Amino acid sequence: MGPNVQTFIGCESSYDEADVVLFGAPFDSTASYRPGTRFASSAIRSESFGIETYSPYQRAALEDFKIFDGGDLDLPFGNAARVLDTIEAFCGKVHDEGKLPVMIGGEHLVTFGAVRAAASRYQDLRVMHFDAHCDLRRDYMGESLSHATVMRRVWDLLGDGRIYQFGIRSGAREEFEWAVSHVRTELYTIRSIDSCAEAACRYPVYITVDMDVIDPAEFPGTGTPEAGGVSFKDLLDALLSLKGLDIVGFDICELAPHYDSSGVSTAMACKLLREMLIAYS
Amino acid sequence: MGPNVQTFIGCESSYDEADVVLFGAPFDSTASYRPGTRFASSAIRSESFGIETYSPYQRAALEDFKIFDGGDLDLPFGNAARVLDTIEAFCGKVHDEGKLPVMIGGEHLVTFGAVRAAASRYQDLRVMHFDAHCDLRRDYMGESLSHATVMRRVWDLLGDGRIYQFGIRSGAREEFEWAVSHVRTELYTIRSIDSCAEAACRYPVYITVDMDVIDPAEFPGTGTPEAGGVSFKDLLDALLSLKGLDIVGFDICELAPHYDSSGVSTAMACKLLREMLIAYS
Amino acid sequence: MGPNVQTFIGCESSYDEADVVLFGAPFDSTASYRPGTRFASSAIRSESFGIETYSPYQRAALEDFKIFDGGDLDLPFGNAARVLDTIEAFCGKVHDEGKLPVMIGGEHLVTFGAVRAAASRYQDLRVMHFDAHCDLRRDYMGESLSHATVMRRVWDLLGDGRIYQFGIRSGAREEFEWAVSHVRTELYTIRSIDSCAEAACRYPVYITVDMDVIDPAEFPGTGTPEAGGVSFKDLLDALLSLKGLDIVGFDICELAPHYDSSGVSTAMACKLLREMLIAYS
Amino acid sequence: MGPNVQTFIGCESSYDEADVVLFGAPFDSTASYRPGTRFASSAIRSESFGIETYSPYQRAALEDFKIFDGGDLDLPFGNAARVLDTIEAFCGKVHDEGKLPVMIGGEHLVTFGAVRAAASRYQDLRVMHFDAHCDLRRDYMGESLSHATVMRRVWDLLGDGRIYQFGIRSGAREEFEWAVSHVRTELYTIRSIDSCAEAACRYPVYITVDMDVIDPAEFPGTGTPEAGGVSFKDLLDALLSLKGLDIVGFDICELAPHYDSSGVSTAMACKLLREMLIAYS
Amino acid sequence: MGPNVQTFIGCESSYDEADVVLFGAPFDSTASYRPGTRFASSAIRSESFGIETYSPYQRAALEDFKIFDGGDLDLPFGNAARVLDTIEAFCGKVHDEGKLPVMIGGEHLVTFGAVRAAASRYQDLRVMHFDAHCDLRRDYMGESLSHATVMRRVWDLLGDGRIYQFGIRSGAREEFEWAVSHVRTELYTIRSIDSCAEAACRYPVYITVDMDVIDPAEFPGTGTPEAGGVSFKDLLDALLSLKGLDIVGFDICELAPHYDSSGVSTAMACKLLREMLIAYS
Amino acid sequence: MGPNVQTFIGCESSYDEADVVLFGAPFDSTASYRPGTRFASSAIRSESFGIETYSPYQRAALEDFKIFDGGDLDLPFGNAARVLDTIEAFCGKVHDEGKLPVMIGGEHLVTFGAVRAAASRYQDLRVMHFDAHCDLRRDYMGESLSHATVMRRVWDLLGDGRIYQFGIRSGAREEFEWAVSHVRTELYTIRSIDSCAEAACRYPVYITVDMDVIDPAEFPGTGTPEAGGVSFKDLLDALLSLKGLDIVGFDICELAPHYDSSGVSTAMACKLLREMLIAYS
Repeated sequence: MGPNVQTFIGCESSYDEADVVLFGAPFDSTASYRPGTRFASSAIRSESFGIETYSPYQRAALEDFKIFDGGDLDLPFGNAARVLDTIEAFCGKVHDEGKLPVMIGGEHLVTFGAVRAAASRYQDLRVMHFDAHCDLRRDYMGESLSHATVMRRVWDLLGDGRIYQFGIRSGAREEFEWAVSHVRTELYTIRSIDSCAEAACRYPVYITVDMDVIDPAEFPGTGTPEAGGVSFKDLLDALLSLKGLDIVGFDICELAPHYDSSGVSTAMACKLLREMLIAYS
Repeated sequence: MGPNVQTFIGCESSYDEADVVLFGAPFDSTASYRPGTRFASSAIRSESFGIETYSPYQRAALEDFKIFDGGDLDLPFGNAARVLDTIEAFCGKVHDEGKLPVMIGGEHLVTFGAVRAAASRYQDLRVMHFDAHCDLRRDYMGESLSHATVMRRVWDLLGDGRIYQFGIRSGAREEFEWAVSHVRTELYTIRSIDSCAEAACRYPVYITVDMDVIDPAEFPGTGTPEAGGVSFKDLLDALLSLKGLDIVGFDICELAPHYDSSGVSTAMACKLLREMLIAYS
Repeated sequence: MGPNVQTFIGCESSYDEADVVLFGAPFDSTASYRPGTRFASSAIRSESFGIETYSPYQRAALEDFKIFDGGDLDLPFGNAARVLDTIEAFCGKVHDEGKLPVMIGGEHLVTFGAVRAAASRYQDLRVMHFDAHCDLRRDYMGESLSHATVMRRVWDLLGDGRIYQFGIRSGAREEFEWAVSHVRTELYTIRSIDSCAEAACRYPVYITVDMDVIDPAEFPGTGTPEAGGVSFKDLLDALLSLKGLDIVGFDICELAPHYDSSGVSTAMACKLLREMLIAYS
Repeated sequence: MGPNVQTFIGCESSYDEADVVLFGAPFDSTASYRPGTRFASSAIRSESFGIETYSPYQRAALEDFKIFDGGDLDLPFGNAARVLDTIEAFCGKVHDEGKLPVMIGGEHLVTFGAVRAAASRYQDLRVMHFDAHCDLRRDYMGESLSHATVMRRVWDLLGDGRIYQFGIRSGAREEFEWAVSHVRTELYTIRSIDSCAEAACRYPVYITVDMDVIDPAEFPGTGTPEAGGVSFKDLLDALLSLKGLDIVGFDICELAPHYDSSGVSTAMACKLLREMLIAYS
Repeated sequence: MGPNVQTFIGCESSYDEADVVLFGAPFDSTASYRPGTRFASSAIRSESFGIETYSPYQRAALEDFKIFDGGDLDLPFGNAARVLDTIEAFCGKVHDEGKLPVMIGGEHLVTFGAVRAAASRYQDLRVMHFDAHCDLRRDYMGESLSHATVMRRVWDLLGDGRIYQFGIRSGAREEFEWAVSHVRTELYTIRSIDSCAEAACRYPVYITVDMDVIDPAEFPGTGTPEAGGVSFKDLLDALLSLKGLDIVGFDICELAPHYDSSGVSTAMACKLLREMLIAYS
Repeated sequence: MGPNVQTFIGCESSYDEADVVLFGAPFDSTASYRPGTRFASSAIRSESFGIETYSPYQRAALEDFKIFDGGDLDLPFGNAARVLDTIEAFCGKVHDEGKLPVMIGGEHLVTFGAVRAAASRYQDLRVMHFDAHCDLRRDYMGESLSHATVMRRVWDLLGDGRIYQFGIRSGAREEFEWAVSHVRTELYTIRSIDSCAEAACRYPVYITVDMDVIDPAEFPGTGTPEAGGVSFKDLLDALLSLKGLDIVGFDICELAPHYDSSGVSTAMACKLLREMLIAYS
């Protein structure tokens, strides 16, 4: 009789046979407003059994792919630098063994660890960034590693013109002004997805979805809800349209499940993750 | 001084004078994921006093009709077969006395009892089925009577081409494949409502609304929220467009009021029920 | 070392230097269904630190203006007449010192106090009224001062053709029938905003937003949620289009923060208030 | 087929045959802090079906008595004087027909209406008052009719030495000082219950239980929780020890069911009400 | 890299090496009032990481023992007979391999399956039953297998004088009357634990704890809270005093974690389970 | 017209005239389980208006003393060392100006900052520590500054025999073993308070109350509820018995208000703080 294994629904490969490695990064220590994203990966796994493994959108099911769910990384609360090192090392190992790393955050800062692993292995990496917030501050209350600075840190690594932002609708004045000459930012919507996909089609691509890009009416389970967002349908269409790109890693971040007691946000995150796993595997 | 009668707002006829008989079927024992629909009918009655009896959409009020609210059926938890018999018997009596039965579920399985009563009295019955889920499994964990099999059981009764499904966006691969040749299924939306209404216009029609057909952003109060649904406005338009058909019974199911602590879902169910009562009475 | 001052984010002028005076009116004693709007102003202030002061929509920030946040008025629960007198007196003083009064309700009845102050100082006042409910009852359970009668009381003051209603979708039959010849009422939507703005452009204007005009999917934090409302985006567009009118006062009412445990409604009220303060200051 | 009658469990007599008349007074307009007691009577009725009708403490069941549940009074929100008149008139009628009135509040002010009815019919009335708060203010924010003044208003009616307070642990300094020479106040506990019962045994007695006398650990569902209260067991013992007095009316007040999402407070109120009905009928 | 194993904290043996086998029985279909115990075992596992593995009460830690956590049984919702067969078969296998079965319910009916397995292997079995409710009905709404009949079904199996009940404070009159001559029932408290332990000390013993025996002030997370219960400390003392008996199986039931949003009830269940595992392993 | 000052009720002195300086330290980044204590000071201030300023226990009111409420310190999330420096500097300034610092946490780690300020100014400092948890780990997941290590860090500073712990009931085996020879630890209860007070009576004393020392039945609003705690009454008695010691600073920590939606925990923290302010000012 075997132990009680808990995975995301339909992700039942072993590590060795897997093409895709799913893992959680339950870290939220730099959250400046309302913490709680540390509970996301665990909630997503247990609520995933409320959805089907089959996608009518793509006419395919999770069982059609070889996905391993490795559980959560052990991360020391309150030490962002060590947390990022741990994530980078783990993703690096996954890359080096020819598999695709897929991360469930945690606050958005965790993306920096995953991008560092990808950027050091794939030249000319592009990042597709879906978010309500710019995340482009140089520092936040004197700290350089913060959920509010994460895309600035990614820019430090990748340089101008490599980051495509969609759905942005909140930030400081300085962030918006700085963005103009350094990143490609679409305000409010994601209509430029096709031209961005075309621009990125010859490069390796990392996709990061801060779930708060979705309108809080549809996704209230997040620490900093920002009205006026994109719809689940539009986001799903956009993400499915990226199928075929050379995607070398992706993540979903910033689900804070306790803030949505109805469970709708967690269920949506499960569904989006299913669709991304099927599309990008 | 009389007793404390509790009804849905504006439904104050006696049984004898009534044309329409509203009742609750508070059963949720086969719910596989999150139970709680047993509380729907009671919540709907008590929250109905937060809406008006007048509909600006139809320029009519509930008091313009003769509706009796009979309260809830006494249903034995954990015995689905007996529950369905009880519902069928009650609806049958209502039909036989020339009144229109209107049921508030409960999990979706209760619809099977109401349809059995209608099908045995009205030849060539059509069923209009609004839902996020196919509900077309042959059986579920070895049980043939389940919320996940209810439309398959209805098909057992009615046969091919009699069931029209709208808004469907979740199911197992086998369900979708089976559906192709047995029922008429519109994925995601309800745009085919006019052509379906036309097809059904010479037949008696039963309408069943699983409230989770509505997008969980608008209706979070349900056990298995499924993103990407239809809007309240679209559903209301569709339902109002069915006015004039020979509607011999209808129900709304799967409100689980406790999962939406804001009360918005219950209020929406109240409003939808008001509109359906006014349109179909 | 100074005291602990609590204001809406970015509203840090002193009273004397301010052009705009923000204040709360935490009163909800006539609420007939679910009370709780008394907590709105306090919740809005403390949650405002979850949004930015900068608006990408208007490319301006709250700090660009001189706004004083005076906290909440002291209002005696259970005495509506005294409450309205207090509000009128306060707003009158603000008007008389050449500043713009901006009120956070409270139930919608508080608007009557603010409108009395404006109407006695500005001839030919127009009122722009965004709401799900008519609020046009002559009286409510025998009381003339009620959240359900507030616009009727405003009409008593201003007369025919001075009130423009938008987004209305609930009321008694009598209200809708009375409205036809006394106020300008747009059902469900706010598409007539441009023609109304044109009609009002030579007059002083008071704007009152009952937050429940927004669809409860987006704004569940209110006592009487009414499905089928306008979107935040449409409301924001409409309100921004009124920039340039001679606005002599405005308010947002009917946030009941406890009914939306996710905090999304409060965050939306904060964002809307930021946009109105920037647009109308 | 009859209408859907909703009563407290086991209270199924008609008015005419009843010895006891239970009714609700859903009023909370003067609540200064957190409203919501208006929902108490409705919650108590519907949750009463989670308890048994039989009391092992008294070896008797509710069905052994003739109790009529008349539902809730229609009370105009925001007009305390009219509310008290309505309650007094109703209780008066019940008294005059030889029945025992039993009221479910509502905020504590409603007790004043019931006591007025009793005091005008029974000479030398005594009031047993269980509460965390003195409720002895002369007025509150300028209003004489308030939850915070209710026992002072009762004293206006009855005079010195007629009010026995138990469990008191909160009030203004002036209240405690005034109390010394006008009422009999036991701080924190109810150990003086026997001597008080002895003192009151030759007089008609009205019993009023502000549920917040119970420690908020056991009874969190109240607007102003005050730590350090009495236990349910101690309160039950005390109330059962009053059996045999000439009790001419009683009430339980200040349950605010929404503040205790677990339902424990409402269930406790149901159980206490069952015990009081059995003991005093 | 291994799979993501989820166990109760400190229970990390393999099945083969284990002396104790912990498992969940997530079934609640016969719940007549408020369902939700199906979520207990999953909540207990994930919240167990909020407590320590070490018990200062017993000066021992879970790691000192060989305990295997086998996860949850797959149980068909809505078919109580099949559910009990599954539990009995599983427990039987555990017994037959010389290990101690420990079950996390689920509603209390699941205990019947575990007792059947024990009773068929151990002669003269005694059952220690901690509960607020008698659970001694002959049938419930016509069903013989129900949470409300479970101890009557156990009595069918074991006969008179073998069941010791503690903390009982709710039931129908008939249950209390029947109990007198068939089981040993202590009302309200557990003071007879020592004499019962002495009476049982020569027999195999099964212990079943319906968590609602604890006062709902301390343990609100249950479907039918019943005021006036025992304290956690008293229950813990009683359970620890049974150490040394020949305990052949035990369970904790009726945690409904969603009804206590603070998580206190789940944390208490975790702590109690830790203490029982340490004491009885 | 002045700004909107927000203080704890009855704390209305200016800094200059004050004898006591109250402030908040809203930090929770090292919380390993459930964060949220960052919201405590703000919740305590706003809910304090639900209690009276007068204490019947001490027959005194907050207005009888000169207390300044300075609001919250600005603390950088995710940098524990900087946070402690900020707290130490602030407390030091308060000490140096002859005032008593009183801190509202935050997680328990913040106490280390306040103790450092006191220890460097008062020789032979004693610390009275009320808590459910030892907090004596040498390090936690490799970090030396953590809520789980805070009393060990205090011991680093003060040495053996200076720390008195009360109510302790959770920790790792090593903590309990280490404690024996280094600190004075009372398990479960606070009965040794008098002898400890006697032992400490010639020394300066710092008092730190981790609110989770109270039983979670009474105080559910905390991140790591631990059953079997002390009662509010016992804790209050103990704290009042310390009046007369040379208390040079005190704090209350670990209220996580969101975990107790009833507000009872926050109200209790308010009451305890009132009593401590009155007793120690």
